[in-house]
Amino acid sequence: MTSPLRLGIAGLGTVGTGVVKIIQNHHDLVAGRAGRRIEIVAVSARNRSKKRGIDLSGYDWEDDPVALAERSDIDLVVELMGGSDGPAKATTVAALSHGKDVVTANKAMLAMHGQELAERAEAAGRALRFEAAVAGGIPVVKSLAEGLAGNRITRVMGVMNGTCNYILTRMEDAKLPYKKVFEEARKLGYLEADPSLDVGGIDAGHKLALLTALAFGTRVDFSGVHIEGIEHITIEDITRAGDMGFRVKLLGVARMTGRGLEQRMTPCLVSKGSPLGRLEGATNMVVLEGDSVGQIVLRGPGAGEGPTASAVMGDVVDIARGLRVPVFGLPASALEQAPAAITATPAPYYLRLELLDKPGALARIAAVLGDVGISIDRMRQYGHAEAVAPVLIVTHKTTRDALDVALSRFGATGVLAAEPVAIRIEAF
Amino acid sequence: MTSPLRLGIAGLGTVGTGVVKIIQNHHDLVAGRAGRRIEIVAVSARNRSKKRGIDLSGYDWEDDPVALAERSDIDLVVELMGGSDGPAKATTVAALSHGKDVVTANKAMLAMHGQELAERAEAAGRALRFEAAVAGGIPVVKSLAEGLAGNRITRVMGVMNGTCNYILTRMEDAKLPYKKVFEEARKLGYLEADPSLDVGGIDAGHKLALLTALAFGTRVDFSGVHIEGIEHITIEDITRAGDMGFRVKLLGVARMTGRGLEQRMTPCLVSKGSPLGRLEGATNMVVLEGDSVGQIVLRGPGAGEGPTASAVMGDVVDIARGLRVPVFGLPASALEQAPAAITATPAPYYLRLELLDKPGALARIAAVLGDVGISIDRMRQYGHAEAVAPVLIVTHKTTRDALDVALSRFGATGVLAAEPVAIRIEAF
Repeated sequence: MTSPLRLGIAGLGTVGTGVVKIIQNHHDLVAGRAGRRIEIVAVSARNRSKKRGIDLSGYDWEDDPVALAERSDIDLVVELMGGSDGPAKATTVAALSHGKDVVTANKAMLAMHGQELAERAEAAGRALRFEAAVAGGIPVVKSLAEGLAGNRITRVMGVMNGTCNYILTRMEDAKLPYKKVFEEARKLGYLEADPSLDVGGIDAGHKLALLTALAFGTRVDFSGVHIEGIEHITIEDITRAGDMGFRVKLLGVARMTGRGLEQRMTPCLVSKGSPLGRLEGATNMVVLEGDSVGQIVLRGPGAGEGPTASAVMGDVVDIARGLRVPVFGLPASALEQAPAAITATPAPYYLRLELLDKPGALARIAAVLGDVGISIDRMRQYGHAEAVAPVLIVTHKTTRDALDVALSRFGATGVLAAEPVAIRIEAF
Repeated sequence: MTSPLRLGIAGLGTVGTGVVKIIQNHHDLVAGRAGRRIEIVAVSARNRSKKRGIDLSGYDWEDDPVALAERSDIDLVVELMGGSDGPAKATTVAALSHGKDVVTANKAMLAMHGQELAERAEAAGRALRFEAAVAGGIPVVKSLAEGLAGNRITRVMGVMNGTCNYILTRMEDAKLPYKKVFEEARKLGYLEADPSLDVGGIDAGHKLALLTALAFGTRVDFSGVHIEGIEHITIEDITRAGDMGFRVKLLGVARMTGRGLEQRMTPCLVSKGSPLGRLEGATNMVVLEGDSVGQIVLRGPGAGEGPTASAVMGDVVDIARGLRVPVFGLPASALEQAPAAITATPAPYYLRLELLDKPGALARIAAVLGDVGISIDRMRQYGHAEAVAPVLIVTHKTTRDALDVALSRFGATGVLAAEPVAIRIEAF
């Protein structure tokens, strides 16, 4: 057996604690698989006296994570502090420039500085791996960058924020409005300190940007991700879309098109019967589509101590075994700067309209749609006691541009009792 | 860019043809990812003149695959001939002993000779990889051996024979008996030349034996897999189990128990609402459970030219990148020879009984179950026009031994109109 792999762990929150536990509890098992022992030399965190339920007495303590990253007795730095800049980035840069490999769970840092860090890693000849940054315990980075390396990837999709999926399925199950479930989730501790990272789609958008780079060989472009959160999803739409055979998901979709790179993290409808439509609670799911493999679906826990630490350890064992894969699957210099697609690929849309109970109301709406070239696949008008009739329309494939024209013209018909709702339907 | 990786491909059936297509069509894409060009030097197959729809003119032809494996201008042999012995094994042995890496899709060969071949690969310092041997395009070997390397694996489950799953779901959808659907599948070309490999569970058993070795660090023990096929599953049981909330699957389950290593490939019931229960058609699904990660579910195409070639290429690119993982995740000498568990882990069972319409019939059956310590979770008796009453029982957890005692005693009650059916329910 060769020399041990010596770790420095920067950040001892939930995930860092989980990594220490695995290394302590499965020392021999992991050594057998890795072909060498994996040993923690030093750790660093903000608060030394915090109770963590683990014995840190065998490790050196560093108050400064950058000092940890510069130690000559460490081969690999595990960065688990979080934050796109500040200590996390400084530590990562220091580790690479001092010839250490880096494993991180930091999606924000890589979404903002992925290209720079990939270039630094390659210049230093070191690995920078981030399985834990995307979809927790699901080995999606590995599946995409290694398992599907023989494929031209055609689409990547995923539900990658467990909190949003929890909120949406809880709204449906309990027939509760968004605000109520949001408050529940906050009380249960499911939300980030800044909840807009979750419900605003930013956290999931970071993850999508990383998968996009891996899938299409492009530079990480978080600013190119079109992001909409779930704050405006109503229980009304969840129920009505359900009647039409759909579920609402905060869905990330990335594909390379003739018009540029399309990256979206927005509420979408998916068929109830599809694996994504059936995904409930905080579980994550990623769908990978390639020209040879067809479609692969990966499902698992997207967060939490054990799953995220499991992903970190997968990367650590890979490095111990000598695996060297470019950070985003291709050499950093070969990653393309693809233009962002201005408009999304055409798709069917779900429309929910509240029509005033006037003769010919529906005809006027249908006429507007027809005028802009949108044809109707299915339509349902509900019985109504009041002066307003709920109407659901599922269109055939259309561009968002045409739909926006139609939405803007609906007002002039004088038959709408409320703002119409339009949600994209992602075929799957 | 370093020197190209030079391939010899032995076997040009569906999968071999698919591999050639990927290398021809995605030469630059794959070279970028692998960090070097991947070039086919020579090929071998039984029939040189067969039309394959690919241009082989740039490659040397070898009639003898062993001669191909011994060529000095080849770095890696792709073995796609199939068969547990014969040319496939001879070619693999020759390749390893001549210092070449090997990628294979051959589940039968590895199930029968996995330990020997792993030892040969390690003695030669070469890689022997087999992603394509298990669950087609799903990167399950990689996920298990690499992605979950930080976990003690607690259970591996899977539906790994698409033909069986097709037959079972088609029976349910069309309400057709087994024999009729079996004939349909044969006509559609879904069955192996020897169909018992599919419907007898042997092919899926081979795959399970490989996953077991990877999961538990044990020597491949195909003879330790308890195998039952789907030939005796009736439309009656599919329908009745459906009424009770279950679906029938040919399910592989492996776990390490205090009584030894448990490996089963048998028809089981799973909850209709679970991912396994919802799996329809020829798609495969593997469930991996680890102490840190919890549960990961992988779903995708289990066979076919594109998916299987995709898996082969994942292995080829790994080798091009320099990845070296022991064949079964641990050094061959460290793989344990675990005793096979004689009996399966206790589980609930589904019983279907045809009771004669006599007073106290059900009471006698219940008494037998009670006497051997089996308690009833749910029971359903159907209305009946004839003199025979169909009765379904879902038991609480019991051992198979206790159940067998009960089954043997049912006869003496004199109330059974037919042989009782018992199917294990795998919790999930």
